[in-house]
Amino acid sequence: MTDQQTLFVKMAYDAWQTYIQRASDLFAKLTDDQLMEEIAPGRNRGIYMLGHLTAVHDRLLPMLGLGERVYSQLDDTFIANPDKSGLEFPPITQLRQSWSDVNSRLKNAFNKMTPAEWLERHMSVSQEDFNKEPHRNKLNVLINRTNHLAYHLGQLKLMDK
Amino acid sequence: MTDQQTLFVKMAYDAWQTYIQRASDLFAKLTDDQLMEEIAPGRNRGIYMLGHLTAVHDRLLPMLGLGERVYSQLDDTFIANPDKSGLEFPPITQLRQSWSDVNSRLKNAFNKMTPAEWLERHMSVSQEDFNKEPHRNKLNVLINRTNHLAYHLGQLKLMDK
Repeated sequence: MTDQQTLFVKMAYDAWQTYIQRASDLFAKLTDDQLMEEIAPGRNRGIYMLGHLTAVHDRLLPMLGLGERVYSQLDDTFIANPDKSGLEFPPITQLRQSWSDVNSRLKNAFNKMTPAEWLERHMSVSQEDFNKEPHRNKLNVLINRTNHLAYHLGQLKLMDK
Repeated sequence: MTDQQTLFVKMAYDAWQTYIQRASDLFAKLTDDQLMEEIAPGRNRGIYMLGHLTAVHDRLLPMLGLGERVYSQLDDTFIANPDKSGLEFPPITQLRQSWSDVNSRLKNAFNKMTPAEWLERHMSVSQEDFNKEPHRNKLNVLINRTNHLAYHLGQLKLMDK
């Protein structure tokens, strides 16, 4: 572990946590009725984005070597299929709880990781490929998922009227 | 300069460049008529987002110590004021050119920066504060601006029908 590793991990982690907080605040502010509306005419509904982000974040648990998935049942509805595919959605209350729970699990696990661990390969890249491309590490996944979250937060913010 | 600095800079820079490319591709795809439309009913228009992102990226030049601003005249219309404030907009063709130009300038300047330079303080933080908070460096600004870009790209993507 070096001071520089600590510094870089802090930068990436702070950005993640900032956007998790902004998204959580927005979801808390939006009513169930609002979440049933489309973000823009003909586009995804708020509830779909809530399920999508929850499923994507749940996938981080095995990808970062932090444990088994908890909400893999959301993948079919919220990742493999688009909104309004005809699949039944879980109740919003349950999705809100899952969003909160998965981010808490991640936060607890992140707080136990050393800076050096963040630089290890993530679980979707082979050791052989990682040796050639050391940027395919866990911290890079976090950076990319923060951008993914920011992308959808910008869309969800349009529902905040 | 260490290998770790090089690695971290690559991770943050790749994410930036990915979103710059995605945004540039989307702006190229959207027609002038589309950019004059609102992203969602009652919200900002595409042209406002184009000017806003151009102005914010132009501000990176002095903030990262890369030179003088080129498009500071955009600030009043696209940062200090909201869309539909009554201020006259530059022609879209000119804004498209400015967006392309400012990102080219940044790319050229970034390619000359050493990894160690990215870890220096940015120009909006004092040396005294930076000594206490070394994460307030140039690379951190890039990480945050990438998230800002992703946030608005998510909104602009709603215009891509």
